[in-house]
Amino acid sequence: MSFLQLVAGKPLATSEERAEHIGPISGIPVFGLDALSSAAYGPEAALTLLIPLGAAGIAHIVPISFAIIALLAVVFFSYCQTIDGYPHGGGSYTVASENLGETAGLLAAAALMIDYILNAAVGISAGVEALVSAFPSLLPHTLAFCLAILALLTLINIRGTKDTGIAFLIPTYMFIGTLIAVIGIGAFRAIGAHGHPVPIVSPPHMPPATSMLSLWLLAKVFSSGCTAMTGVEAVSNGTAAFRDPTQRNAKRTLTIIIVLLMIFLSGIALLCRAYNIGATDPASAGYQSILSQLISAVMGRGWFYYVGSASILAVLALSANTSYADFPRLTRAIAMNDYLPHVFKIRGRRLLYSHGIVALVGFTAALLIAFGGITDRLIPLFAIGAFMAFTLSQAGIVMHWKKQGGRGSFHRMIVNGIGAVATGLTLVVVLVAKFTAGAWIVAILIPALIFLMLAVRRHYRGVGQEIAIDRPIRLDNLAEPLVIVPLDRWSRITEKGLRFAMKLSDHVEAVHVDAEECRDEVAEMWQRNVALPIEQTGRAVPKLIFLSSPYRFVLMPLVEHILQVEREHPDRQIAVLVPELVVKHWWQTPLHNQRAQVLKLFLLVRGNQRITVINIPWYL
Amino acid sequence: MSFLQLVAGKPLATSEERAEHIGPISGIPVFGLDALSSAAYGPEAALTLLIPLGAAGIAHIVPISFAIIALLAVVFFSYCQTIDGYPHGGGSYTVASENLGETAGLLAAAALMIDYILNAAVGISAGVEALVSAFPSLLPHTLAFCLAILALLTLINIRGTKDTGIAFLIPTYMFIGTLIAVIGIGAFRAIGAHGHPVPIVSPPHMPPATSMLSLWLLAKVFSSGCTAMTGVEAVSNGTAAFRDPTQRNAKRTLTIIIVLLMIFLSGIALLCRAYNIGATDPASAGYQSILSQLISAVMGRGWFYYVGSASILAVLALSANTSYADFPRLTRAIAMNDYLPHVFKIRGRRLLYSHGIVALVGFTAALLIAFGGITDRLIPLFAIGAFMAFTLSQAGIVMHWKKQGGRGSFHRMIVNGIGAVATGLTLVVVLVAKFTAGAWIVAILIPALIFLMLAVRRHYRGVGQEIAIDRPIRLDNLAEPLVIVPLDRWSRITEKGLRFAMKLSDHVEAVHVDAEECRDEVAEMWQRNVALPIEQTGRAVPKLIFLSSPYRFVLMPLVEHILQVEREHPDRQIAVLVPELVVKHWWQTPLHNQRAQVLKLFLLVRGNQRITVINIPWYL
Repeated sequence: MSFLQLVAGKPLATSEERAEHIGPISGIPVFGLDALSSAAYGPEAALTLLIPLGAAGIAHIVPISFAIIALLAVVFFSYCQTIDGYPHGGGSYTVASENLGETAGLLAAAALMIDYILNAAVGISAGVEALVSAFPSLLPHTLAFCLAILALLTLINIRGTKDTGIAFLIPTYMFIGTLIAVIGIGAFRAIGAHGHPVPIVSPPHMPPATSMLSLWLLAKVFSSGCTAMTGVEAVSNGTAAFRDPTQRNAKRTLTIIIVLLMIFLSGIALLCRAYNIGATDPASAGYQSILSQLISAVMGRGWFYYVGSASILAVLALSANTSYADFPRLTRAIAMNDYLPHVFKIRGRRLLYSHGIVALVGFTAALLIAFGGITDRLIPLFAIGAFMAFTLSQAGIVMHWKKQGGRGSFHRMIVNGIGAVATGLTLVVVLVAKFTAGAWIVAILIPALIFLMLAVRRHYRGVGQEIAIDRPIRLDNLAEPLVIVPLDRWSRITEKGLRFAMKLSDHVEAVHVDAEECRDEVAEMWQRNVALPIEQTGRAVPKLIFLSSPYRFVLMPLVEHILQVEREHPDRQIAVLVPELVVKHWWQTPLHNQRAQVLKLFLLVRGNQRITVINIPWYL
Repeated sequence: MSFLQLVAGKPLATSEERAEHIGPISGIPVFGLDALSSAAYGPEAALTLLIPLGAAGIAHIVPISFAIIALLAVVFFSYCQTIDGYPHGGGSYTVASENLGETAGLLAAAALMIDYILNAAVGISAGVEALVSAFPSLLPHTLAFCLAILALLTLINIRGTKDTGIAFLIPTYMFIGTLIAVIGIGAFRAIGAHGHPVPIVSPPHMPPATSMLSLWLLAKVFSSGCTAMTGVEAVSNGTAAFRDPTQRNAKRTLTIIIVLLMIFLSGIALLCRAYNIGATDPASAGYQSILSQLISAVMGRGWFYYVGSASILAVLALSANTSYADFPRLTRAIAMNDYLPHVFKIRGRRLLYSHGIVALVGFTAALLIAFGGITDRLIPLFAIGAFMAFTLSQAGIVMHWKKQGGRGSFHRMIVNGIGAVATGLTLVVVLVAKFTAGAWIVAILIPALIFLMLAVRRHYRGVGQEIAIDRPIRLDNLAEPLVIVPLDRWSRITEKGLRFAMKLSDHVEAVHVDAEECRDEVAEMWQRNVALPIEQTGRAVPKLIFLSSPYRFVLMPLVEHILQVEREHPDRQIAVLVPELVVKHWWQTPLHNQRAQVLKLFLLVRGNQRITVINIPWYL
């Protein structure tokens, strides 16, 4: 255990659990990290799609960014009301299943599960993109870095939530500081230069245009850019964590986060146009992220650039951390409703739901490996889950207000309704624009997940009904079981089995399967070592039964015999004692036949409630 | 079972076993196949090494073949005496371990195991070489054909020895007929043409010489050619199968086989020289086997060629069959002496030792895949095992005669001694000449196998001593076991466990691990459903014990508690009843936690002879 403790920390007692009560200062890192870090990959994803338009395409980022900011404003007001409606925290799954019914709940559950996994993958790979922009020689190792960060995050999270809070504070504020400084100074210079500032380090030249502007292209750019909005639901999910006055603190935190995000998105868009910064192909050797180009252009490649890049890497990697906190909590909530295996309900040694973390890490690693660790390819899959969750959550809140009725609820319904319609429309745009680029995967995955969850629930319900009883224990027919002991040669193991059988019952039957044609020998051994001595003590002498086995099978005649005994005694429990040699080392296993295990399996498959197999371990 | 029966035939009763009693006519196919088919690859292997000498090299095959024939004569007389000494069959393993002690026996065992595996691999791949010689377009599929033939042979053999006898007769005699016809007609033409007959189909031209003749090269050629002798021990191994007069029939059969082999070897060598037939590179596209060239040259490429080639393919593939018969018999004999896992002793449903066949097929397939199905690369490994077995067997027979003493035994010792020395010297030549070409693998494998076999025996001896008792059953202290039942919620499963516990013993302890902090609920449930009803019947009420689990572990506190109970009651058996849900379909397994299995494992690892885990299956 000591190695495990060293890595994962000592186990935490249930009593060590505490409600975190935080204000806006620590709320921004904890709940805003995910939303704010989206600014690092949203504009990038949009600009990447503008590459085919060449240098002229860059300007289009500005109107698209403002469209996204407008959508963000709508979502902001909508989520403020979610905080009012669900002061104990309203995740999409809770809100949708409570207000829109089972199917909507499952839809939200499936969308969120996919989303959290994609969030972890995108966060990590975008972080690594920041790293390889600063150090281009690391480019070939993208995937390795992704997996290393995944491992590191897992390690941090296995130690439990208690230790992770502080790790967020510094990088988040450094990231915010970096972006505000760059945007502020950049804007100052741009205005001073009448909109045409001279970059300190020039961004790479854009390739010539290869394609024409079209509405379809703009829809795709908008769809990709929308990933900048992912993560804004975090505050309303976790409202309960804020200190009194809870709702006001939560809303204040949400406001700050949204305003910062708006500044980032508009600032990045405007400066990209001013400095002529376009995206570079993430799969090419000359790749450099938008933020990296932007910081270089405004501040040069001095210490600020490296500190800023470090904070971007840290924040992106940590934004993956949201998934570590939320995915296990989500799978637990789903498992509570019997839609996922119950293991997801078990809290591990460090107070967290370890099985959820294992599942998250497994899927994230698979995704990173499948996509070679390049964010861009993951983004189409990402936005769909996020916007489906937005839409369902807000539609749910609309129904929540409708149910509540009363003064002001109509006004609230309108606000959330606008939010739901806006994100719903965006969802349709994203789904259509990105369908061939991978969104179809999500469109298959979500129904598949829902089908799976329904099957899981049907199973649990069936089992629950089958084993439920609402009456005290039956006390009739408590006769000793009939005990059957397979018998081979006379050894300590045989003796132990027989002795245990005699302890359990007076009705013991030793069975010898005569595959080797040595019946007389066994009978003589039995008479001498078992029958005579027991007879002398006046106890019930176990019966010895021979089963002939013309085909040398040992187990089949035994199983047939046991089943026959079971049929002949419909009122008795049958206990089959199987001696089992326990070897000291695993590699000794092939040296001993595994008949005990196979017999158990046969009886499990062919047996019934009245047959019980008892392994008598013999330790070497 | 019906599919298995269709493929593998119905199971055979032990009583259906029969001693085959055969004469020379059916003895030649059964015991001679392996030896005679060697003629198809031995000369080929020798000639392949003469390729670097160009056309001039071909002539050297004649003296080398006659050297091998001389060695064969020595071995013939030696094995005739083995038939006298071991009329019930004297395989190298038996003879060496009986007469030369354990180490020599193990050496023979290791050499033979390797040899039988190589025999299967070489037989199959040489057969496929005959096939691709006839149909060169099949050359790229060499490995696939090898594996297909391996699968076919396995299928035939799984059906058991009863059906395989007849399959040998026709191809063997066709093969003998083909070779005798080719050699006879070829010799007639060669003599008629004064040693320079005109081939009907000219063999491919030999490439120019690239190397000089050296003694070292001749040693290597001789070593490869010696593989033509493999298989001559078969008759003396299986003497018991011949009908009365057993020994005379066996010797007569051996004589015919050896004479035929001598005719083949000398005939092939002389005709190769007369027709200028040299080997072709087996890895090249223009590959054609020696026999294929020879038949084409003498008989042309008519129906005779194709019928002859078919018989060569059949005989070579069937020669691999020797391994199927002998390898399982050998591993069984070794397992009887505790040097191999005892599973090799189990006779399967069709009266054969199925585990041996599985091991043989596995290793052969691995070899064929590793060497790409090309015989030539396997041959250096083959000859060593064979000659080691020859030498040990004959040296053993020398000791056998020495022990027997009496008239004539000195003469017999001389004959076998010459045989042992001759094959021993050949072994040294082969080992040295082929060391770098792969013989080193055998030189490592044999000691490794011996080490393994010694370790296996040590283990079995240790276990045997540990479990052996030579006294009747102890009958003291047959008190009922203490029964511990882990308890969670009240369900049919819990009820079944408790009822079974009460059937076994009056000392029942239900244990609830309080990981979820619901002690009061459980206590109330217990009182209502268990304690009160049982009290009313006047029976002993099981105790309910709570274990607190601050860290939410369920199993560790339980295991600790069980171990503590065990320490407190040094005179009692402890039975732990673990209810286990048995799902209907395997894929439902992840839906239920596997605590029962893990608890069993913990108790197996940490428990001792007095703790027994009883699974109470609950079938859904």
